[in-house]
Amino acid sequence: MANHDGLTDSERQSLSSDFKDWSMVDGRDAISRQFVFRDFNQAFGFMARVALEAEKQDHHPEWSNVYRTVTIVLTSHDVKGLSRRDLALAKSINAIVDGSH
Amino acid sequence: MANHDGLTDSERQSLSSDFKDWSMVDGRDAISRQFVFRDFNQAFGFMARVALEAEKQDHHPEWSNVYRTVTIVLTSHDVKGLSRRDLALAKSINAIVDGSH
Amino acid sequence: MANHDGLTDSERQSLSSDFKDWSMVDGRDAISRQFVFRDFNQAFGFMARVALEAEKQDHHPEWSNVYRTVTIVLTSHDVKGLSRRDLALAKSINAIVDGSH
Amino acid sequence: MANHDGLTDSERQSLSSDFKDWSMVDGRDAISRQFVFRDFNQAFGFMARVALEAEKQDHHPEWSNVYRTVTIVLTSHDVKGLSRRDLALAKSINAIVDGSH
Repeated sequence: MANHDGLTDSERQSLSSDFKDWSMVDGRDAISRQFVFRDFNQAFGFMARVALEAEKQDHHPEWSNVYRTVTIVLTSHDVKGLSRRDLALAKSINAIVDGSH
Repeated sequence: MANHDGLTDSERQSLSSDFKDWSMVDGRDAISRQFVFRDFNQAFGFMARVALEAEKQDHHPEWSNVYRTVTIVLTSHDVKGLSRRDLALAKSINAIVDGSH
Repeated sequence: MANHDGLTDSERQSLSSDFKDWSMVDGRDAISRQFVFRDFNQAFGFMARVALEAEKQDHHPEWSNVYRTVTIVLTSHDVKGLSRRDLALAKSINAIVDGSH
Repeated sequence: MANHDGLTDSERQSLSSDFKDWSMVDGRDAISRQFVFRDFNQAFGFMARVALEAEKQDHHPEWSNVYRTVTIVLTSHDVKGLSRRDLALAKSINAIVDGSH
């Protein structure tokens, strides 16, 4: 199955266990996670790392930043909802914040 | 007058002439401008430059990015509305995009 | 021919015409170009864009920065010299600075 | 004493204790530290944070990057050697890497 496809039922069911820090966005087939950092410096360092990963994976977030808070929404416009690309990027973002990337 | 003060009437009247690319945000004393770039690469290069300027001025935007679009909202939480710091940052952001910074 | 291969004779001969802003590095099979920007802000915005492109191409520069000057050296450690990956990254970097990227 | 002044004797003597991860650069009144990260992503995230701090302090490093390695040299061109600005920036850089910033 290509990354461009939408999620299978089992992938969708795994969201709550494998991506428990992410929430479904109301009214959209999209997931969201909010990150609070120490200050703007740390928040933007994180954003630079996510930007590099997004460009590498050719899949980009909808995201916003206010001072030390970064909110990331992931969805795939071409399939009008979540795809495996969203899970791949979410996994990389999780790894950046938990220090394993 | 310190940068931390709110806008005077004359400064507020000058918004439409001096910052004509910015719009008032509905229901808030804040200004907003949307930027559309060629691609994510160019958009994030711009964001890195705005981040440096924000940190230098110790005044940070509320901003969001979706692929090649960046939307910036400027307001000053401590005065619950626009201040001269917003105008200073807006001026720097304008200079970055028009190539004079 | 894969991008990982070294340069053919004709590709090597084309360096002086197609990459005339780049110079051969003394004593190494590598090319170098120096960029002088208006200030650090502009220099680092450029670096952020090159970083994104490098990560996307999975080929990274040897580079240094002093205030508004950025010096980039390109070579491919795995072939102990120039490869087509260096030309691809040089082309992207040229496009960033000439405004076509 | 202003930050623009060179180091006093006691500040200079404190270098080996307070900045033990930094080394004197051969033949220059400058200090240097090399950082090795997991990969380019992590290295550039660090660089983005140092860039923000440098711009905020209006004092910029001489630095280079090769994949996951970043080398930073600090000196103050206007005093032709080390100044308190170098110590301030070194302290911030240390805090970024040890997680306290």
